[in-house]
Amino acid sequence: MSISTRLTDLLKVQHPILLAPMDIVSNGQLAATVSRAGGFGIIGGGYGDESWLAREMGVAGDARVGVGFITWSMAKRPRLLDFVLERRPPAIMLSFGEVRPHAGKIKKAGALLICQVQTLEQAKDAVANDADILVAQGAEGGGHGISRSTFPFVPAVADAVPHIPIAAARGVADGRGLAAALMLGADGVLIGTRFHASQEAAGSAAAKECIVSATGDNTIRSILFDIARRNVWPAPYTGRVLRNSFSEKWRGREAELLQHQDEEADRYAKSRAVGDFDTAAVIAGEAVDLINDIPPAAEIVRRMVTEAAGLLSGASNRYRVAQQ
Amino acid sequence: MSISTRLTDLLKVQHPILLAPMDIVSNGQLAATVSRAGGFGIIGGGYGDESWLAREMGVAGDARVGVGFITWSMAKRPRLLDFVLERRPPAIMLSFGEVRPHAGKIKKAGALLICQVQTLEQAKDAVANDADILVAQGAEGGGHGISRSTFPFVPAVADAVPHIPIAAARGVADGRGLAAALMLGADGVLIGTRFHASQEAAGSAAAKECIVSATGDNTIRSILFDIARRNVWPAPYTGRVLRNSFSEKWRGREAELLQHQDEEADRYAKSRAVGDFDTAAVIAGEAVDLINDIPPAAEIVRRMVTEAAGLLSGASNRYRVAQQ
Repeated sequence: MSISTRLTDLLKVQHPILLAPMDIVSNGQLAATVSRAGGFGIIGGGYGDESWLAREMGVAGDARVGVGFITWSMAKRPRLLDFVLERRPPAIMLSFGEVRPHAGKIKKAGALLICQVQTLEQAKDAVANDADILVAQGAEGGGHGISRSTFPFVPAVADAVPHIPIAAARGVADGRGLAAALMLGADGVLIGTRFHASQEAAGSAAAKECIVSATGDNTIRSILFDIARRNVWPAPYTGRVLRNSFSEKWRGREAELLQHQDEEADRYAKSRAVGDFDTAAVIAGEAVDLINDIPPAAEIVRRMVTEAAGLLSGASNRYRVAQQ
Repeated sequence: MSISTRLTDLLKVQHPILLAPMDIVSNGQLAATVSRAGGFGIIGGGYGDESWLAREMGVAGDARVGVGFITWSMAKRPRLLDFVLERRPPAIMLSFGEVRPHAGKIKKAGALLICQVQTLEQAKDAVANDADILVAQGAEGGGHGISRSTFPFVPAVADAVPHIPIAAARGVADGRGLAAALMLGADGVLIGTRFHASQEAAGSAAAKECIVSATGDNTIRSILFDIARRNVWPAPYTGRVLRNSFSEKWRGREAELLQHQDEEADRYAKSRAVGDFDTAAVIAGEAVDLINDIPPAAEIVRRMVTEAAGLLSGASNRYRVAQQ
């Protein structure tokens, strides 16, 4: 079974399902597994560590995987991009920062340029800078973003740049989401939190269990966890995490947390190290409601394709269309 | 042409398209037009004015329309609900407040109880209090709400209360949105901003023009406009409006605006009266990107059904499903 779109044609994959390059979580193993299952894995270059990237690209082996960067962070050490491009990845994904300074280099290396965008303005700018694929990112997902929401944002991007393949990102965790994204005008989806709760994802087992047991009513957009890990992003980015004792203690008290940053950052780092997610943040989106297990990543792809194919083939008995 | 679901069966209508009971904007004329076009119109009871309600229910005439209340406001004058129920509407919609005190009365009068919910907890509570239909409301829409987003919230509600028909609300403005909502597990949609920009909607022509020319990148959730019209809602509700000079001037300065409330409220009221939307807020959602004209409401229904029916019938050439 397969679902083809102009996105799968361009990426030369079987299913329009991309792995979000979640910092650290999307390692070589997870990315390779998603690609081998017919999707497109993207390694999370995150804040940039050359030895980590070298190792994980090695782990991915001959699987066709891309690499994603947090652009404003990578821009401080552009050598990281060169390092990755020397290894000839089929695609590079840029998120959260200026596309223009890096686009030429990426295209020249023969990689597809995937740009994740959070506003219509960013979408137009990315396309003006030769993006091949856009990821239209809503703020309901885990991790960083701005404020648009997936449901109205995807069709708006589709209308603004109709000639560019689009993946809908954030809030998508099952075949219903994939089918809905295609209805809205997307050509596929990019999946974060659902793949975080997979066997192959890096990161602690306790964090994965938190995702399985959490409710989407209980997430928060915040910069508290960035302050606590001494990693404050440029405005206007904030990030979505599961609420916990730490977020509730400091909510609305960002300035005060900054004033106590030294001692709190130490406590926070220790909590992360031991997997204490009452203090450390689990980065996850509202779609946690739809996540109830920690299967192999290939099983996630299979389920998503099967469910979406059924819905798209009109197998549902939930509606009836009459032509008169 | 028609699209039937268990929601249309229950409401006895042709299309699963409900008019959001936008305060003042959803008057008798608009509600009746939507119902006569095959959807289900709901008059906006808003903050409650008996003579307005009497007049608008009269204008709707023999069209089958419901009435929607801002529950916390109506609860201060429950006589309003009695007044409406005496006129035997087919359905009452409650949003933003406790369902329990009013549910018995509504059901006893033979009306369907539609409950708009913003969290999974509210969804379960509404069903425990005999709701017949839920409206799962994301925060990307215009007007008041909380913080869940339509794309991941709708399937979560569908999973939590599978036996209850659900309308997806907020961010839906065309047939793509209707088709996507059905894929996500909803049985229909409830439409606000798109119907605001219709010929029949009450409210100023200038506000409708603002909706047509606005971009979804330029909306904001805020309580500033509530402070300025002396109408502060209970927590945790905030409302989405188009950004304008007023919102940008006062953003982050809620306390200061309260301290200047007397003079600012006067200025604000005058701006509303003359249609100066550089100061007065246009209540609208992120879906403004998808709204480019001010057609008759029946034309909006027709377009939405035609587009959705095409998508649901697999007429799209944007994807191909292969079974092997």
